[in-house]
Amino acid sequence: MARHGENRAVVLLSGGLDSATTLAIARGEGFACHALSFDYGQRHRLELESARRVAAALGAAEHRIVRLDLTAGGGFGRSALTDAIDVPKDRTGTGGIPVTYVPARNTIFLGIALGYAEVIGAFDIFIGVNAIDYSGYPDCRGEFLEAFERVANLGTAAAARGGGRFTIHAPLLRMSKADIIRTGLSLGVDYSLAHSCYDPAEDGSACGRCDSCRIRLAGFAAAGAKDPARYQNVE
Amino acid sequence: MARHGENRAVVLLSGGLDSATTLAIARGEGFACHALSFDYGQRHRLELESARRVAAALGAAEHRIVRLDLTAGGGFGRSALTDAIDVPKDRTGTGGIPVTYVPARNTIFLGIALGYAEVIGAFDIFIGVNAIDYSGYPDCRGEFLEAFERVANLGTAAAARGGGRFTIHAPLLRMSKADIIRTGLSLGVDYSLAHSCYDPAEDGSACGRCDSCRIRLAGFAAAGAKDPARYQNVE
Repeated sequence: MARHGENRAVVLLSGGLDSATTLAIARGEGFACHALSFDYGQRHRLELESARRVAAALGAAEHRIVRLDLTAGGGFGRSALTDAIDVPKDRTGTGGIPVTYVPARNTIFLGIALGYAEVIGAFDIFIGVNAIDYSGYPDCRGEFLEAFERVANLGTAAAARGGGRFTIHAPLLRMSKADIIRTGLSLGVDYSLAHSCYDPAEDGSACGRCDSCRIRLAGFAAAGAKDPARYQNVE
Repeated sequence: MARHGENRAVVLLSGGLDSATTLAIARGEGFACHALSFDYGQRHRLELESARRVAAALGAAEHRIVRLDLTAGGGFGRSALTDAIDVPKDRTGTGGIPVTYVPARNTIFLGIALGYAEVIGAFDIFIGVNAIDYSGYPDCRGEFLEAFERVANLGTAAAARGGGRFTIHAPLLRMSKADIIRTGLSLGVDYSLAHSCYDPAEDGSACGRCDSCRIRLAGFAAAGAKDPARYQNVE
């Protein structure tokens, strides 16, 4: 629970590099962090185990996993992360929105985070989206987050009663992947716990070839640091 | 499935009077209607059975129930609809936001409806909110819906790819309850199927005393029609 004087924040935690760094930043700003992860039927289930470890390592006040079926079986699907669609490998360039896009995912996750924030009396929500070294998802842009913040302040009892205003924090939004990694390392993030690969092997090792791995590896290289993740076929 | 030439719409369907009327309006406008209900742990579980019957009676192309635990057991709760909090009875006036408010419910439901719309190729989402004879919920106001529409058009691949623009339809927004009922009756809605009570008896009969029953009964009286719902203690 929150220590005396700490404000609570809800932190969306996928278990990946960006959300782990975001949690570390929120902790560094003095928030008691209530981490929220989603079991939405993602193919890379290692995410949730990574999220648990990251939340514990970075001193989250709480880690909660919300279940919501976004797979084809639940009527959703249509993404390489939730459906029987191959994860693209060895892509050069990032033209267009890739098949790893999950329909309206950040809108859904932020909506649930908003409800949870109301329940625990938080007005601050952290999300690790990034508009620079990213995969081209529309729901990772600053104007999207600003629009959602407006929804939060119009659509909740907490804001309507005048108790405060919601802020959607996206501290990584304009950072390069190298800057994200440097920031996280300076805050003590153990990136061996953070899982990024869209298509890991059964033993949990990363493919090194999907968009997420490629962006991560390039980020560590640019930051002049060694990525502690285990990769297949990469020495 | 959609008949040739019909556009698809996602219709949020609680099983109550307003959402039943909204579905009838969407059907009347020629949409192939994909009705979406939520099993979120609501205490009045009869809603879901009502939603099924309403969807069938009004010719929905599909009716889907999404599960999401918003109860105290799932870490949410804090509403008389999902938690062990008494439903207020015999209230006069509607000052403030009542305890039946569910934190960020419409933001969450619209977010999931948006994702589902993307999956089925719909750009139209119908929601039966009403800003006149309503219970004082902040997420039932026009400015909230406009803000959400902006989120939808900024945060989705479907809009970013230029295939269309999302519209959040709230046809009941500025109608009185009597007008809603008259409209529904003219469109053939069988209101005996639509469930409104926040605190029904085990046999499904309505209490007649919660905000929702009181607003409904006053609406039928003002419309000069008889409410076909079964009430306890009401002749």
